[in-house]
Amino acid sequence: MRGVEDGLIVVKVGGAEGIDYEAVVEDAATLWKKGQKLILVHGASAETNRVAEALGHPPRFLTHPGGMTSRLTDKKTLEIFNMVYAGKMNKYLVELFQKRGVNAVGMSGLDGRIFEGKRKKAIKYVENGKVKIHRGDYSGSVERVNKELLSLLLEHGYLPVLTPPAVSFEGEAINTDGDVAAARVAEAFQAAALVYLSNVPGLLERYPDETSLIPKIPAAEVEAFMRFAEGRMKKKVLGAAEAVRAGVRRVVFADARVPSPITRAIAGRGTVIE
Amino acid sequence: MRGVEDGLIVVKVGGAEGIDYEAVVEDAATLWKKGQKLILVHGASAETNRVAEALGHPPRFLTHPGGMTSRLTDKKTLEIFNMVYAGKMNKYLVELFQKRGVNAVGMSGLDGRIFEGKRKKAIKYVENGKVKIHRGDYSGSVERVNKELLSLLLEHGYLPVLTPPAVSFEGEAINTDGDVAAARVAEAFQAAALVYLSNVPGLLERYPDETSLIPKIPAAEVEAFMRFAEGRMKKKVLGAAEAVRAGVRRVVFADARVPSPITRAIAGRGTVIE
Repeated sequence: MRGVEDGLIVVKVGGAEGIDYEAVVEDAATLWKKGQKLILVHGASAETNRVAEALGHPPRFLTHPGGMTSRLTDKKTLEIFNMVYAGKMNKYLVELFQKRGVNAVGMSGLDGRIFEGKRKKAIKYVENGKVKIHRGDYSGSVERVNKELLSLLLEHGYLPVLTPPAVSFEGEAINTDGDVAAARVAEAFQAAALVYLSNVPGLLERYPDETSLIPKIPAAEVEAFMRFAEGRMKKKVLGAAEAVRAGVRRVVFADARVPSPITRAIAGRGTVIE
Repeated sequence: MRGVEDGLIVVKVGGAEGIDYEAVVEDAATLWKKGQKLILVHGASAETNRVAEALGHPPRFLTHPGGMTSRLTDKKTLEIFNMVYAGKMNKYLVELFQKRGVNAVGMSGLDGRIFEGKRKKAIKYVENGKVKIHRGDYSGSVERVNKELLSLLLEHGYLPVLTPPAVSFEGEAINTDGDVAAARVAEAFQAAALVYLSNVPGLLERYPDETSLIPKIPAAEVEAFMRFAEGRMKKKVLGAAEAVRAGVRRVVFADARVPSPITRAIAGRGTVIE
């Protein structure tokens, strides 16, 4: 049976500098009006840093033993995080859709337990070459997606606009990686495509040389391309291969600084993993 | 036919100082688990003032020719408003529900066009005894409620937690009066009760003497009680009588600084308009 979800596209738009949100929403709205069902997941990291600075609670990041970094999320940081992700950015995007006649519904992972996972209170990090443990953090990884609620909204003509935080199994708000959350949504729906839009054109062979774009990576050969990925991109590419193995037809890393970024990504402009 | 909405209670909890939100949610969660369907609408005015000050964009209020005041809402104020109402306060309340095992869904009036109304760009106000006009404001009054979406959520076991802003007919986010929005929701559902919780026990004959509580006002005689109401309370009481005339069974103004505030209000502790 082909349902309303068949051919669903999940778009994750990052929260980094330079992203043209109006172009992303314009394109999503155009596709939606043509009958393309989609779910938008967004970040807001750069803006959260700005607001946290302005409120006198500057952001702090932990470097993990593996080299990755993550935001230290105490209770006050989580409040600011909620304000910017679920308040400012989420409602800004919903408003852009409403102005274009698309009935978007903005929700965080807390709402209806859309993004559910385990809170990881103790986090290992490296400081002055030593591994230390930060306790009491409000963060965790999305393990379960409330597909029923998202389907209900899609079936009734609402475009879901989703954002961290997630909810812990105990009901606490937790900071979570938006890229992983988007992958879990795409997997739950066995999506036709998962599109990651950011301020780079995709995975680059010689970062930051944008002419060195890698156009295609077979999911089975993803390890061979790891040497080109740095920092967060490494995690993104590994997550993408995992999503493909979990049933997402393809994942595209593409540019969000251009017109029609989603349409371009679906047409293969970017790095395609399948 | 008696549906899931029969006997629905709409609770509006204000954003003033002194309100015990944990007590409100604890009571709402207990009622919900007993099968009582309800919708919570909230404000966040005091916290919005604090954040606006901290961000260097202090709140400004306009005094209208009739004596009422309202928040001057320019684009920057609306952003802060969204952060605090839809981000901080809405997610705080949703989290309190999730911690108690109630699957709440927090949404602003923008989401799914839950609160829709006309943007009022030009606002008359009084300054130094002269009537002036402020243009370019982002505010307006709720005229339509998306009952279909709220019913859908209730039918599937989700407790809606709603907040301003509303959405204009053109799709813009607009600051709106939460009391009026709650009344429109209660009217749309022909609610069994509309409960206004704030930091006073109800309408007082001799404000602020809390022993002078007026226990009951027949909706038809509301004008006779207007002399006891001041400022925002005047608007609240008139709105309550209007809601009763529009089919809401009763409206109760009650205290949100006590345990079990909703249960108490439904039991008639407060000022009942019916």
